Amino acid sequence: MNLVDKIGELARLENGLFQKDFLLTWEKSQDEIELILSLAIILKQLREQRISPKIFDSGLAVSIFRDKSTRTRFSFASAANLLGLAIQDMDEEKSQVSHGETVRETANMISFLTEIIGIRDDMYLGEGNAYMREVGGALDEGFQEGVLPGRPGIINLQCDMDHPTQSLADLLHLQEYFGSLEDLRGKKMVMSWAYSPSYGKPLSVPQGIIALMSRFGMNIELAFPKGYELIPEIIETSRINSENSGGLLNISHSMEEAVVDADIVYPKSWAPYHIMQKRTSLLKKGDRDGLVNLEKECLNQNANHIDWEYDARKMSTTKNGEALYMHCLPADISGVSCRQGEVSADVFEKYRLLTYKEAGYKPYIIAAMIFANRIKKPGEVLQNLASVT
Amino acid sequence: MNLVDKIGELARLENGLFQKDFLLTWEKSQDEIELILSLAIILKQLREQRISPKIFDSGLAVSIFRDKSTRTRFSFASAANLLGLAIQDMDEEKSQVSHGETVRETANMISFLTEIIGIRDDMYLGEGNAYMREVGGALDEGFQEGVLPGRPGIINLQCDMDHPTQSLADLLHLQEYFGSLEDLRGKKMVMSWAYSPSYGKPLSVPQGIIALMSRFGMNIELAFPKGYELIPEIIETSRINSENSGGLLNISHSMEEAVVDADIVYPKSWAPYHIMQKRTSLLKKGDRDGLVNLEKECLNQNANHIDWEYDARKMSTTKNGEALYMHCLPADISGVSCRQGEVSADVFEKYRLLTYKEAGYKPYIIAAMIFANRIKKPGEVLQNLASVT
Amino acid sequence: MNLVDKIGELARLENGLFQKDFLLTWEKSQDEIELILSLAIILKQLREQRISPKIFDSGLAVSIFRDKSTRTRFSFASAANLLGLAIQDMDEEKSQVSHGETVRETANMISFLTEIIGIRDDMYLGEGNAYMREVGGALDEGFQEGVLPGRPGIINLQCDMDHPTQSLADLLHLQEYFGSLEDLRGKKMVMSWAYSPSYGKPLSVPQGIIALMSRFGMNIELAFPKGYELIPEIIETSRINSENSGGLLNISHSMEEAVVDADIVYPKSWAPYHIMQKRTSLLKKGDRDGLVNLEKECLNQNANHIDWEYDARKMSTTKNGEALYMHCLPADISGVSCRQGEVSADVFEKYRLLTYKEAGYKPYIIAAMIFANRIKKPGEVLQNLASVT
Repeated sequence: MNLVDKIGELARLENGLFQKDFLLTWEKSQDEIELILSLAIILKQLREQRISPKIFDSGLAVSIFRDKSTRTRFSFASAANLLGLAIQDMDEEKSQVSHGETVRETANMISFLTEIIGIRDDMYLGEGNAYMREVGGALDEGFQEGVLPGRPGIINLQCDMDHPTQSLADLLHLQEYFGSLEDLRGKKMVMSWAYSPSYGKPLSVPQGIIALMSRFGMNIELAFPKGYELIPEIIETSRINSENSGGLLNISHSMEEAVVDADIVYPKSWAPYHIMQKRTSLLKKGDRDGLVNLEKECLNQNANHIDWEYDARKMSTTKNGEALYMHCLPADISGVSCRQGEVSADVFEKYRLLTYKEAGYKPYIIAAMIFANRIKKPGEVLQNLASVT
Repeated sequence: MNLVDKIGELARLENGLFQKDFLLTWEKSQDEIELILSLAIILKQLREQRISPKIFDSGLAVSIFRDKSTRTRFSFASAANLLGLAIQDMDEEKSQVSHGETVRETANMISFLTEIIGIRDDMYLGEGNAYMREVGGALDEGFQEGVLPGRPGIINLQCDMDHPTQSLADLLHLQEYFGSLEDLRGKKMVMSWAYSPSYGKPLSVPQGIIALMSRFGMNIELAFPKGYELIPEIIETSRINSENSGGLLNISHSMEEAVVDADIVYPKSWAPYHIMQKRTSLLKKGDRDGLVNLEKECLNQNANHIDWEYDARKMSTTKNGEALYMHCLPADISGVSCRQGEVSADVFEKYRLLTYKEAGYKPYIIAAMIFANRIKKPGEVLQNLASVT
Repeated sequence: MNLVDKIGELARLENGLFQKDFLLTWEKSQDEIELILSLAIILKQLREQRISPKIFDSGLAVSIFRDKSTRTRFSFASAANLLGLAIQDMDEEKSQVSHGETVRETANMISFLTEIIGIRDDMYLGEGNAYMREVGGALDEGFQEGVLPGRPGIINLQCDMDHPTQSLADLLHLQEYFGSLEDLRGKKMVMSWAYSPSYGKPLSVPQGIIALMSRFGMNIELAFPKGYELIPEIIETSRINSENSGGLLNISHSMEEAVVDADIVYPKSWAPYHIMQKRTSLLKKGDRDGLVNLEKECLNQNANHIDWEYDARKMSTTKNGEALYMHCLPADISGVSCRQGEVSADVFEKYRLLTYKEAGYKPYIIAAMIFANRIKKPGEVLQNLASVT
């Protein structure tokens, strides 16, 4: 389908995302998910044809990172720049949990001329998404009460629950790799825990992946060692999604068994669930020694599962021995970025460029989210852009 | 008055601010002050109508913050962006006092393609404003000697003497709240010291407020505990302003008595004057222990005045019990942002959204300052902008 | 020659710099060097006439600084902004030497919508330029394999070998000061080591200067105390350049004797060569104590040559007593920025504004590099820009 047709099709979609924050994929309808995918692909093709989709003459895109990030930061900056916004970072001190008046006030103070706010806050269970909603509530009030000339949109750049810009970039990658969303139906996708020598990786990627991919009729296999559970409500959401989409969701506890006959394998470390829970309560108490001890406990627990590495032997048991390997990057690559990690060097190298391409969809996913949030009829605006040029 | 009429009126004003730094409000004429207010309101209305006032195709707005800031940083960034400039931060190490060749050279090095430089340097009495003038002198020389293609303007984003972007935003808030500048005549405005558990707050806000508000025929009551004097020359300037404008300036030493019958109350902490003086000399000597001891001394002295909190009881004695509460934010709110602070939670909550609106004028005040500094006939340029659209 | 003629002349030049990284001046042909100079002067004149050379509608200019910098950072930001790009900084931790997958992956992750990458990595012999090439290789692969929609260009903002934006700005300064490149023929230029109380200054400036200036028929005198050698291959390159251009290159070991009859004197400190070599190997071993000891050794060695200060007495022996003094700034000025340094205060003051002008060419040199890298026919594009306006 050519670009003009794609834009025409887009113009026929309702935009339910207009002036709505993008916080969790499972709050969005199937149409809304597909709108983001379409918009992202169109923006990517426009860029490849050097047609500018600049929709803003001025305005700020504010990024609030409460955890370190290079690639999400650049993706957000690229997306904002593509559409004509200037980036303004508001880096808060790591692991600061602030509430109430500070959040309410700051949300307004950074928003007088702001179109979009991207927030990354993924360190503490029960905190990140709640913080985004608190910011959102403050912006609602600020707009309704005449403090703000407009209500900036909020984009979740990773929280304790979901990582929608990642999971949607991953979904777009799958769509482009296998041909279409329809082609994903019946595919076996394994979201597997993997060993890492590092501490405290958030649960948002596996949660985001199963909650989103379960909507497309895939057979999802979620594999992890006992003790590495995910948030139960999100498992439940994914289970319902699977049922509704005609797919399956299965949980198991061996990477080795899980990957057999897989079409797609996503091996990715995350922290033990009960440790992430303890961590939040220690943080709230300000118990620094407790946090240090917890880190040791976590690393010790990880060390029991050093065999959860995705390697050539395991890969050989997947569908035709060539399941698509996925990762949100950076991966812990054995013998490359660490002694022993999530994936062996040979397997990673085989799919390395594909993981780069996977990451390459993220700026366009974010641009699509901004576009859909600010423009009521994205298709019409794009028709004008494309015809003028 | 509608937008077109406002712009027409603006076009009839002389722009005495063209290519002049904005360092102290009391160096500016009444016409110049009103030009800023008019321009700011027009830029705000243009933005609300989504008419772009972009006057730059490229160019940098450099911000030099020698003290932490979130809201002034965002206000400056928003204003620059609105007019088409890109922000480039030059963060210097806190509390560094550098002079001579370093300042002269750096001023030129950051200015080859720069339109405006915003400086915040408010930590040390006798330093901040002097530093801005030193930068200005270096830019004058650089421009005259052909080093620079233009002379960037300088905007004082808070110094040891004045905080003109704040006081002008506050004045605009008063104008909009009470109807007009004329309506301020005879109003009683109380600028009162208030208790805070934090150290070393600059004197620039109270000084800026009394020096500016005294020009509009108000009855200014400046209240503080003995030992919390302001710079005597600025008091004197304000006194003369009051006389000239047909207002009053009174100094007293009880918040409780001062606020009786007030129309406006601005309760705001600042550091003891003699401590701020000692601080500068300790800093110059590099006496770190001395600075630490001084901080203790300051906090101990503050603790003697814990009853200088603006609360519902005090508020009830103001005009009709509903004087306008003002603050530059963030306020130290008792039981919210600290145990005991400048204002009680109930009073703050009643005026919370109004303080946000007050802050919301600041980006437009700064944009107006940039506009007036760079454009000889702002009214004509705006007439073109508004008519084209 | 007026602007239109200059642009016309430029339009007749081949652009061999199109889509080629700018890493070392000695990899570039004479035509390519002159193309940069012409473009830079044209861009400077356009800016002075307020004609915008904006060639980008959107896009990022990424700066990677592995060493502190104010002026190069601002020059790069100004150049990018002038052409329509937004700056995105990627500050890495100082003295981190990373290779392999990290570099390869990061290079792609920051480049999805990036036009140009400026890199400063000058701390370790054998590292900086190699790192830039590693980034370049990763970008080549990313573009060829369809990861990136375009291949961002790389500009060397200073490495262990060369500092091309500095040496070209210096050359442009000489061209403008003496009238033309042709007028440089036969001039005596002294690149001299000078005493500094600070540690570890890179060799890239003297190396860059002799390798570039030797191409224009000058008599280059390189003077340094024994032990402060430069990279032998670069000396050799400069010697060949001198021969080819009909100039001379002489190495000597006394500033006092070297400056006699000089037309141009560039006194600038750098670190002892063998210490810079040891430093890299200690860094690779992670030997922190070794690095601290090495710093002491270096400062002690410097202290033996405290008489290598360029002062009025030495200056009086230059051609007519008024050789052009040059410096990349900031200079270590005796009695001003340090007790005893590279240059006496009276000599520096005499040439101070000229060193500012020298620095003022850098933003335009960088803009010219970006322009030539991204635009196949810069002359034609500029003809359009200049005629439209």
